[in-house]
Amino acid sequence: VTVAAPDSIPADVHADVMSATGEALRECGYAGLTMQEIADRAEKSKSLLHYHYDTKEGLLVAFLEHLVRRFDAKLDGTADAPPDERLADLIDLLLPDEDDEDWARLHRVLIELRAQAPHQEAFREQLNRNKAFLQRRLAETIEDGVEDGTFREVDPDRTARFVLSALDGARSARTTLGDADDVEAVRAGLAEFVLADLRRSGEGTERVDPAAGDDD
Amino acid sequence: VTVAAPDSIPADVHADVMSATGEALRECGYAGLTMQEIADRAEKSKSLLHYHYDTKEGLLVAFLEHLVRRFDAKLDGTADAPPDERLADLIDLLLPDEDDEDWARLHRVLIELRAQAPHQEAFREQLNRNKAFLQRRLAETIEDGVEDGTFREVDPDRTARFVLSALDGARSARTTLGDADDVEAVRAGLAEFVLADLRRSGEGTERVDPAAGDDD
Repeated sequence: VTVAAPDSIPADVHADVMSATGEALRECGYAGLTMQEIADRAEKSKSLLHYHYDTKEGLLVAFLEHLVRRFDAKLDGTADAPPDERLADLIDLLLPDEDDEDWARLHRVLIELRAQAPHQEAFREQLNRNKAFLQRRLAETIEDGVEDGTFREVDPDRTARFVLSALDGARSARTTLGDADDVEAVRAGLAEFVLADLRRSGEGTERVDPAAGDDD
Repeated sequence: VTVAAPDSIPADVHADVMSATGEALRECGYAGLTMQEIADRAEKSKSLLHYHYDTKEGLLVAFLEHLVRRFDAKLDGTADAPPDERLADLIDLLLPDEDDEDWARLHRVLIELRAQAPHQEAFREQLNRNKAFLQRRLAETIEDGVEDGTFREVDPDRTARFVLSALDGARSARTTLGDADDVEAVRAGLAEFVLADLRRSGEGTERVDPAAGDDD
């Protein structure tokens, strides 16, 4: 997957630094991370890192942005599939593969960054941007399904937030508590309760709709 | 609400220390917390705290256990309601009240403890016990509903894990990213997709059941 670099940084430098940052975070965690560690792994000088990314926090914000760009690049190939398949694919891509220890180590660090977010505005803003991106992707897919009749009428943004919350809870349980059963439960729950329900497009509107009272 | 103390600690001492720990965590966060701070707020000596709780980690584990016991005590009054009401009540109790700043400050600290869980076995074990308790409460309620015909046939444990993951994701978004919209989206999503679906008890079994293939 090709991931774009920020305008001010040469693409090959950025690619090396992002890859080195991922490695360093998986190996050293957030607390143990230093600019020197990343510079060594990227085979760059520490002053070059400071020149392009300013501080360690700046580099971590760039890394969070890199993660969401990489995810976006992965989605490019699936744009032509029907909405229900695209939604199922998005859910699969956002759930961890149980045996992927690299995934687990990186996400343990992301949870630490998230725990810092209330106190670190730059992390909070970038994490909110990443979340808004994922929400938009889910909501657009749901909206496409409502428009072409694959899905029943739902509020796309609210449904996207609900789906993303369930995925996020499962990722956190897997990452911090070592409980992988929640991942399978969320996979099954989203298929059984959300996807199956959304597909009931032709069956009338007798369902409870909590938004129905919001119009007045 | 009356909350039981561990056998080895006088109930009034434990109540004072737990209340002081909650205050200290909300005021100082996890990083700034000291035994002295808690001792001062509880009007006890630091050596008494060490005598009863051993280390700061031991005291925090006792505090996590206290939180789940307090939650349990809150549920006592609702045991006689019908299963669908009890499930809706449980969901409400587990979702933050938007304006409760005390709740938000305490939960920011709980997210920090959770981020420590991969490296701190004692936190991880207690957080897993707390999670197992909530899961069991949700699963028992769902099971009661399946048995008395209020709900359709579902896997109670798996459904409980799914519901809890969504609640957890919403709490984390509210707490770390300041995004309260997810709380309302999860409240609405659980009502619209899960509770409404569970109540379709009399409408046959044409629904997709991802567990159907697991029996062989």
